Amino acid sequence: MSDAIGVAILGLGNVGSEVARIIESSASDLAARIGAPLEIRGIGVRRVADDRGVPVDLLTDDIDALVSRDDVDIVVELMGPVEPARRGILGALNAGKSVVTANKALLAQSAGELAEAAEKARVDLYFEAAVAGAIPVIRPLTQSLAGDSVIRVSGIVNGTTNYILSAMDNTGAGYDTALAEAGELGYAEADPTADVEGYDAAAKAAILASIAFHTRVSAEDVYREGITKISADDFDSARALQCTIKLLSICERLTDTDGTQRVSARVYPALVPLTHPLASVNGAFNAVFVEAEAAGELMFYGQGAGGAPTASAVLGDLVMAARNRVQGGRGPRASRYAKLPIAPIGLIPTRYYVRMRVADKPGVLATVAAEFSKREVSIATVRQEGEVDETGARLVVLTHKATDAALSETVAALADLDVVLGVASVIRLEGTQE
Amino acid sequence: MSDAIGVAILGLGNVGSEVARIIESSASDLAARIGAPLEIRGIGVRRVADDRGVPVDLLTDDIDALVSRDDVDIVVELMGPVEPARRGILGALNAGKSVVTANKALLAQSAGELAEAAEKARVDLYFEAAVAGAIPVIRPLTQSLAGDSVIRVSGIVNGTTNYILSAMDNTGAGYDTALAEAGELGYAEADPTADVEGYDAAAKAAILASIAFHTRVSAEDVYREGITKISADDFDSARALQCTIKLLSICERLTDTDGTQRVSARVYPALVPLTHPLASVNGAFNAVFVEAEAAGELMFYGQGAGGAPTASAVLGDLVMAARNRVQGGRGPRASRYAKLPIAPIGLIPTRYYVRMRVADKPGVLATVAAEFSKREVSIATVRQEGEVDETGARLVVLTHKATDAALSETVAALADLDVVLGVASVIRLEGTQE
Repeated sequence: MSDAIGVAILGLGNVGSEVARIIESSASDLAARIGAPLEIRGIGVRRVADDRGVPVDLLTDDIDALVSRDDVDIVVELMGPVEPARRGILGALNAGKSVVTANKALLAQSAGELAEAAEKARVDLYFEAAVAGAIPVIRPLTQSLAGDSVIRVSGIVNGTTNYILSAMDNTGAGYDTALAEAGELGYAEADPTADVEGYDAAAKAAILASIAFHTRVSAEDVYREGITKISADDFDSARALQCTIKLLSICERLTDTDGTQRVSARVYPALVPLTHPLASVNGAFNAVFVEAEAAGELMFYGQGAGGAPTASAVLGDLVMAARNRVQGGRGPRASRYAKLPIAPIGLIPTRYYVRMRVADKPGVLATVAAEFSKREVSIATVRQEGEVDETGARLVVLTHKATDAALSETVAALADLDVVLGVASVIRLEGTQE
Repeated sequence: MSDAIGVAILGLGNVGSEVARIIESSASDLAARIGAPLEIRGIGVRRVADDRGVPVDLLTDDIDALVSRDDVDIVVELMGPVEPARRGILGALNAGKSVVTANKALLAQSAGELAEAAEKARVDLYFEAAVAGAIPVIRPLTQSLAGDSVIRVSGIVNGTTNYILSAMDNTGAGYDTALAEAGELGYAEADPTADVEGYDAAAKAAILASIAFHTRVSAEDVYREGITKISADDFDSARALQCTIKLLSICERLTDTDGTQRVSARVYPALVPLTHPLASVNGAFNAVFVEAEAAGELMFYGQGAGGAPTASAVLGDLVMAARNRVQGGRGPRASRYAKLPIAPIGLIPTRYYVRMRVADKPGVLATVAAEFSKREVSIATVRQEGEVDETGARLVVLTHKATDAALSETVAALADLDVVLGVASVIRLEGTQE
């Protein structure tokens, strides 16, 4: 057995407390797996007090001093916001410590800077917990699929929005009701913006796209739509189409006709056929669906949030980083060699569901269809749903694949037609073969 | 970029050909990910000929010489049977080469011997492709969950039997019909024994149990029942119980009342509730469901067999082994420190479905129930299914958890009762909460 590996933990919230607890309660197992015991040398917190559930002499509010202590080998960052986490991590890396972090917002913004510092210091920077909590996603993409070519990653990676959408699907509730219920049950925060507007999912999409396609993708490269406009009517239509609606983080490698490759990273609510494995991922569960050239379709499913599941992912990284300290060697470093350009959303081909209110008179369908056809948006099916009344008829069009640009122009043109009383909803359809 | 990494491939079947093809077609991507190009130095085959799809000068039938060549750094073993694979791998490890293998039968028999040789030579021994083809399972268990405690692993890891059982469920066909169809479509071999009797699933269970519980488990430690006795009637009952039937490889850590821990590894067909994620894994797909203390429930899903998916897993291992050669360092070694004893099947508590033919007269139910109760097997539900006729009535009993020993005694006693005309089927029920 080698000398103890010194660990500093930054942050003592849900996840930090659980990590500290497991390091103590599983000490002998962890030591056997690493080849050396783990020892917590200090825990960085804002408030040093003796009611924090850990020995008070472990606590410190001097993060800078903690991360550069000689007896610290690995720093586990679980503080959350971008700052002071960034400063703490850079301090640790520059002092030659390996780093484990769950900070998706920071990684989606500063992955390049952190990777460079890790590379310079020749230490590990692990972040399995940053995407989809306990579900192994980063390691399968960077290691298991290291010899394959990933085509597309489609993830349900935000538990709050998945809880809300699942509730809307199950109960027929509207968005506001489902959001309120999620808040009461602790699945949505008081200010739910980061979740419901897709910012959290976009940060994770940036991380997934970066590692899947060996290209630096940051949160601002990700196209983003939230779920706030999804209505009970949309779920009615979805059911009629044998679909549900999920907020997807999609990362895709697109090849132009001239062979140019681009990366698309985008977040939006989408219709998903009930037969697709992602459709049955409900409530606060997360899943990541991967399509690769040789492997075909893979899915990783599990709990995407919560103290214990996130701690599991953090501890996996911690054990690997500690093993590397004991045995020599490092895990795979950031790989960004492909440097693919980012595809703008206008170029992205997807299928669309367009729901509109139209006047109930002859020739309407032909007029509507002409607007699609003019912009080479091919229609797969048209359905009239529900009753016709004095406010007209509800028309639902499902298209074949069209670019976002062509579809947007079509929708604008439809809205200008006299016979179209209003375009109520435009949602993409994902997970079908064509 | 470092000097080329020399690769020897043993075996040129479906998987070997695909691996050789991808090494050539993805050469620049693989080199960028590794930091050095891969070069195939030789391919070991039984038949050296110029019609094998690779340059004939790469081929050799002298495996011993190939695996010890100075210009070979990594040996990829894809020959299949235990011998000559074992000899080839040991030769390679003893010569200081890292080894990647997909050979589950060999690993389930000789993992200890191979791990020791790898340890002595301080090289990597990777085998992601040995269980569940392209699905990352070994790496998540050994690395992502390295800081967690696995409680149970339940896998659908044999595509042939899953194809047959899915077909029986979908079409109502009997076992023989479904097997014949699977054979015609290439999903079952001419001699299907290894698949339908559960030997293949047992080898994979041994590998999974070994890594999940840090304990050496070999194929002979695995309790095994095949699917040949499953009938269309069983599927009728399963549907009535809102279940399907799957061949499961289950690895479980059991804690006795005195705190003693044991490992159970077992393979049998089991009823699985339709609401369980494993129930919707159909056809030739594989999935591994993991329950861990901190992570909770995880599932890994994908293609469990086939040339390209298996090649994907092999190449992931190859890239990791090559990176380690370039950067220094090794992947995690075999961890068997826990050395838990194997629990005999008699001790294993599960729920049971027992279907029997009983005489149609008063008091039968009480007589039958008494036999269960005498052995402390608690009954959850009793149903009479179908019509009563001159051959009696069909009675289906679903128990709460009972040990295999208690249930076996109960079934033997039931068979001796005058009112029981025959016990038609005994199948375990897995995947329920209690």
